[in-house]
Amino acid sequence: MRIARFSIDGNVAFGAVEGSTAPGAEGELVLDIIKGIPFADFELSGTKVPLSKVRLLPPVLPNKVVAVGRNYAEHAAELGNELPEAPITFFKPSTSVVGSGDPIVYPSFSQDLHHEAELAVVIGRMCREVPKERVKDVILGYTCANDVTARDVQQREKQWARAKGFDSACPLGPWIETDLDPADLAIQCTVNGEQRQLGRTGDMVRSVEDLVVHISEAMTLLPGDVILTGTPAGVGPLNVGDEVAVTIEGIGTLTNKVIKRG
Amino acid sequence: MRIARFSIDGNVAFGAVEGSTAPGAEGELVLDIIKGIPFADFELSGTKVPLSKVRLLPPVLPNKVVAVGRNYAEHAAELGNELPEAPITFFKPSTSVVGSGDPIVYPSFSQDLHHEAELAVVIGRMCREVPKERVKDVILGYTCANDVTARDVQQREKQWARAKGFDSACPLGPWIETDLDPADLAIQCTVNGEQRQLGRTGDMVRSVEDLVVHISEAMTLLPGDVILTGTPAGVGPLNVGDEVAVTIEGIGTLTNKVIKRG
Repeated sequence: MRIARFSIDGNVAFGAVEGSTAPGAEGELVLDIIKGIPFADFELSGTKVPLSKVRLLPPVLPNKVVAVGRNYAEHAAELGNELPEAPITFFKPSTSVVGSGDPIVYPSFSQDLHHEAELAVVIGRMCREVPKERVKDVILGYTCANDVTARDVQQREKQWARAKGFDSACPLGPWIETDLDPADLAIQCTVNGEQRQLGRTGDMVRSVEDLVVHISEAMTLLPGDVILTGTPAGVGPLNVGDEVAVTIEGIGTLTNKVIKRG
Repeated sequence: MRIARFSIDGNVAFGAVEGSTAPGAEGELVLDIIKGIPFADFELSGTKVPLSKVRLLPPVLPNKVVAVGRNYAEHAAELGNELPEAPITFFKPSTSVVGSGDPIVYPSFSQDLHHEAELAVVIGRMCREVPKERVKDVILGYTCANDVTARDVQQREKQWARAKGFDSACPLGPWIETDLDPADLAIQCTVNGEQRQLGRTGDMVRSVEDLVVHISEAMTLLPGDVILTGTPAGVGPLNVGDEVAVTIEGIGTLTNKVIKRG
């Protein structure tokens, strides 16, 4: 099931996305409004609204986003880094999350903003010290993420709270796909329609299971928390006016336009 | 005013702490229960409960904690680090926050847990790009913090999400002091009654004002968000069974015991 979060006439709701996302068929998508929330048992209401009539919101409002650095060998190499012995983990705050269609606001303190397309894992239930064989039970589904990074600030400031945590640095969307095997999916990033990144989740150094085990060894994960699993090679600059799109096989496309802070 | 958050008979409330915190007089403290929340206009109810009858909770439930590294020159030097050109900023997640009297649970993946006594700034209103002269307007008050750190993990993992973000790594309390000039306060850490850290906030490399300007340049701060302002020299190990206390002049004492994970 594809679960979207959206606003319509000032109300916020979750809905199941129905219809084909094949190119050309997208106008046909409808949302079946969910009674309740997707983090517990829920029913579809049968009340349907066309996707074109709503504003998509980030599919979750995470309490925290835990992200992983250098999880694809070719990407580590392109920035001149070795693969880390332990996964590199950092946080992006809830205030950095935006949805598909929302702007990425170019930060005033950077001159080198980069895209990083990533598979995002959405946690479905509160958990800690999850054993590898139980990881599937704590995951609600998967969405697309862009780990937008002020590369110059990242290199200058040692810890990445500002470089990767500024407002709008974490686009998530367009929706959560709950029925998906994340083991080997194509992941692509385009800028203005031109391909910049193309990789496969099968090339991750640490798998989704390994990352959930590693992170939950230290900290409680809450329903709606998000884990970003690292970016494949091909990261590069974003400029004001660019439209950046992250597409993951089996999920869909997250699209955001870069704007100047007004 | 000193504002505590507490639970009594299963209910959670804020209260104004009345009475003297002078040594020996602490049994006399009472809480005047607040009608509403301290992030908006509020009144005291006049209903009073003795502090000894309640369980103190973290004085706020922050959406995010933004912490600053190496903000005291002597502490940077004791770990063999130079002072950074830009402040080092990192996040501690909401799941790491505990209150005074709560245990610090020694993480399973570390053999070198350290205390770091810090002045914590509690944000009172939503803000972004705060100019220096307006910083006072966005601060609700100050509390004590312990930026508990798995030093071995910190050195191994490059980014500090696990080293400083594990459950119970962020004790805050005992309460928020709203009437305080943070410019030059004594800050002390004891372990089992023995002094380990003693510094003055006047020795910060960047002042509270500078830090709020720097952080809010990048990200929106929400009511209840917390900024940790760095630790003075004297950091050192914590062992299971230790009682660690952070005392800041004009605020009070945050006390936590280190326990083994059960």
